[in-house]
Amino acid sequence: MPDTAVVLASGGLDSTTCMAVAADAGLRIVALSFDYGQRHAIEIEAAARVAKHFGAARHIVSAVGLLRELGGSALTADIDVPRDRDEAAMADDIPVTYVPGRNLIFLSHATAVAEVVGARAVYIGVNAVDYSGYPDCRPEFIDAFTRAARLATKVGIEGADLEIRMPLVELSKADIIRLGQRLGAPYHLTHSCYDPAPDDAACGRCDSCRLRLKGFAEAGLDDPIRYAG
Amino acid sequence: MPDTAVVLASGGLDSTTCMAVAADAGLRIVALSFDYGQRHAIEIEAAARVAKHFGAARHIVSAVGLLRELGGSALTADIDVPRDRDEAAMADDIPVTYVPGRNLIFLSHATAVAEVVGARAVYIGVNAVDYSGYPDCRPEFIDAFTRAARLATKVGIEGADLEIRMPLVELSKADIIRLGQRLGAPYHLTHSCYDPAPDDAACGRCDSCRLRLKGFAEAGLDDPIRYAG
Repeated sequence: MPDTAVVLASGGLDSTTCMAVAADAGLRIVALSFDYGQRHAIEIEAAARVAKHFGAARHIVSAVGLLRELGGSALTADIDVPRDRDEAAMADDIPVTYVPGRNLIFLSHATAVAEVVGARAVYIGVNAVDYSGYPDCRPEFIDAFTRAARLATKVGIEGADLEIRMPLVELSKADIIRLGQRLGAPYHLTHSCYDPAPDDAACGRCDSCRLRLKGFAEAGLDDPIRYAG
Repeated sequence: MPDTAVVLASGGLDSTTCMAVAADAGLRIVALSFDYGQRHAIEIEAAARVAKHFGAARHIVSAVGLLRELGGSALTADIDVPRDRDEAAMADDIPVTYVPGRNLIFLSHATAVAEVVGARAVYIGVNAVDYSGYPDCRPEFIDAFTRAARLATKVGIEGADLEIRMPLVELSKADIIRLGQRLGAPYHLTHSCYDPAPDDAACGRCDSCRLRLKGFAEAGLDDPIRYAG
């Protein structure tokens, strides 16, 4: 049996490209998604479609009630999603879509899953270029987390080290899309919009849509998903 | 307003003593408990009683579905709890009650709560003496986690460092009980048993009961809770 990897799957471009990288490496995939009160459960549906596309052995959806209860982010609370911001405005501060401790919590769950399913690698689509405002996307966070995760688990004690892999960390959005295109990532199944229309069409105006559209434009490719208006 | 501390609260002896230490330091307490499919929700009820006793500003109960789904532990799955083991047998290996990545997941949630409520300290009742078999109770894990948590959060970026405090880490169970007794810890409200009777009486025979009873005996004190038989 091939080695197993746990792949964090949000149904978006980056995690889908991550899964394509893991699949291309011949790994058996266990996909892991989180239900943390996103206003749009279509993220989880997109992740399920992508996991199925790659023949994942299992798709685990983990409920994390805390992140919604804590609020403090446009993704989980009822405050407005910013629209039509340029990149300078996005880069200026920690995004309003920041969820406190999100990657810390996600990676902790992924570590527990890795131990139980016997995976030696966790794939996460963090990307330091586009989202420099998220503290828990920084490589120095991932390095520190890896050390803690190795110490926390039986695997760590027994000397077989868990790896947290970030294949996208140094790539631009256009580079990510080019990589995914080359590996056959099913971008038509993905979802990125923070504020989709009732019929699930992407808004084209939130930070996530704007970064996505700019990435496809720079890569010289058409975005296969549907946009409103 | 006094500084705030997040205190992990399981309703047992150790976390109750931890909360007594935080209260004695004059801190405003936010108690945090986890519902991860323990077979006995009375742990959470005990934690709520203890938090109320200490006048906690808030008691957050966070549902963590993953730990039950993953199974692999007598605390969450339907396998037998060991009885009547001596300390040598308990110390011999990683306990059957081990939950993969439990403290890693708990501390990740506590870090997110700390960020949202503005706490600079998290109290956790880990204890390296009694439970040397749990990899994520080791001080070197806590140190590594602290570094990751500081890097993961806005607090960390802004230079105000989160502290993970382990006031019990070097204490024996008898020392913990003596400390709690001195600080007025309400041990009559606590619950430790892995396998209580239908009327909630403790079994007196599982590892947790045996360590507790031995601790009270060595401290020269009576355990105020009720035991079966």
